Amino acid sequence: MKPHRECPLCIVSVRLNEVASANLSNEDALEASRLVLETSARAFREENELTRIASRIFMTVSSKYPQVVEYYRVAKRRGIDAAKAQLPAIQSVLRGLEGFDLFKMAVKVSIAGNLLDMGVASHKPPSDLQVASIMGMRFSIDNTHELYSMLKSGGLRLLWLFDNAGEAIFDTVLINVIRGMGNKVTGVVKAEPGFQNDLTVGDAEYAGLRNQLDDLVDTGYSGSSIHLDKVSGEFLSRLKESDLIVAKGMAHFEYLSEVNLGKPIAFLLVPKCDPVARVLGAERGTLIAMLRLS
Amino acid sequence: MKPHRECPLCIVSVRLNEVASANLSNEDALEASRLVLETSARAFREENELTRIASRIFMTVSSKYPQVVEYYRVAKRRGIDAAKAQLPAIQSVLRGLEGFDLFKMAVKVSIAGNLLDMGVASHKPPSDLQVASIMGMRFSIDNTHELYSMLKSGGLRLLWLFDNAGEAIFDTVLINVIRGMGNKVTGVVKAEPGFQNDLTVGDAEYAGLRNQLDDLVDTGYSGSSIHLDKVSGEFLSRLKESDLIVAKGMAHFEYLSEVNLGKPIAFLLVPKCDPVARVLGAERGTLIAMLRLS
Repeated sequence: MKPHRECPLCIVSVRLNEVASANLSNEDALEASRLVLETSARAFREENELTRIASRIFMTVSSKYPQVVEYYRVAKRRGIDAAKAQLPAIQSVLRGLEGFDLFKMAVKVSIAGNLLDMGVASHKPPSDLQVASIMGMRFSIDNTHELYSMLKSGGLRLLWLFDNAGEAIFDTVLINVIRGMGNKVTGVVKAEPGFQNDLTVGDAEYAGLRNQLDDLVDTGYSGSSIHLDKVSGEFLSRLKESDLIVAKGMAHFEYLSEVNLGKPIAFLLVPKCDPVARVLGAERGTLIAMLRLS
Repeated sequence: MKPHRECPLCIVSVRLNEVASANLSNEDALEASRLVLETSARAFREENELTRIASRIFMTVSSKYPQVVEYYRVAKRRGIDAAKAQLPAIQSVLRGLEGFDLFKMAVKVSIAGNLLDMGVASHKPPSDLQVASIMGMRFSIDNTHELYSMLKSGGLRLLWLFDNAGEAIFDTVLINVIRGMGNKVTGVVKAEPGFQNDLTVGDAEYAGLRNQLDDLVDTGYSGSSIHLDKVSGEFLSRLKESDLIVAKGMAHFEYLSEVNLGKPIAFLLVPKCDPVARVLGAERGTLIAMLRLS
């Protein structure tokens, strides 16, 4: 997605906040802030796509200041633990549901998990995302029927593009349902040291996600989406072999909505800023399950 | 004051917000944002005092994008009108008070007006600052007795360094009391086109402030405080001739707390961010009336 007028404030605020929050001395935090500003000035001059701008600034700053990575590592583990604590309550809501009703409720849980996003300046992720809040959310784009029809006979190879670490726990609820229909799901995460609070292989191990997936791979790259000129050859082969992409969250939507992968993509997200909400024609804070066929 | 770790996020957010909010096309708002980022990167590298950094970025951007000035002009008029609408209720609270009690209540009103600050990223100024909210505020530094003792015999020449436009209306309540004691008050405002939503001569005329002052001058400069190497010679003469400075707001405190003017300064402000609150040893959102004798 191209930058909108609100985007520099959001992206640069998130980058400055993470260096101010990291375990750095006051002097180092100020030096890291100067690096954020210098890199942001260049990135907003030289790039014209939001996820590339945000990734470039983050990667430049976090490679020089690993304390930023550590700040997110702690936040990710906290997010995973908090999400796991919600699983029994979620399972009790799902119990008794079957077929499309079970699928749709699991879609709702997975999308609601996208609220655990630390990368939107105007959005404060909930420390505990409780079932009652999830149940209160409503769809503004709802292609769950089409998606269910596609998945219900089984036999598809899915690539599941994970987003925030805590969100991945909520995703497992839907992944279980989809695998239960006879489909295979490969989880895709950012390469270490990761992007913001997004899931990496290390986080997936910590969360015990391998058992819930047919396979787990990283993109070979720690940017915020699967920038096709930056990801590994191995990941590109996986992409080629897959039948359906599930793209969780705003960054994957921002990037992939303008890229043709030649195969269907299910965008599952909560728009948490006005530019993304406007592009989707949806309200902020609502559930988006949008199936794009190719 | 020197930058603290939280300051780049705050200063740059306010600067990016004002260009995003100004009446600019999307493309011009993005170009203005790039200028904010480039100027911020240089300012945080080359300067080491917060009010100079904020002033330099604002002056660079607003001189190229007068729409930013217009954005604040509209906000300032709205702030002045809203503050004027509160005056009858404030007068009815003051009625019946006299001597020190009247003075202290007027000090409280003037300091509370400092909440109308659009220059702190984490602070949302109230659209209507009502008497009940003002009454509920408490002092965390209270030198009103010392200040009253200094003023009660009259005969002093005060320079009143105004801050936000709406705040100036609340200031007139205290200025009237001080002039009523036989002191002379010269109001000091930023030169056009002003800084953020701070008072300029044009705003003071709009608000009808001349009648409430013995004189009204500008600093010859539109930076956020009275940077002694930037203000006009005429203003410096006024400074020299005065017996007491009343410095409203955070920016004047940040700058003047580290400058020796060789005469007493009364700092009247509400700290609205952690760095200023920490330096003052006070809580955010409390009233500060601090008299520094020289």
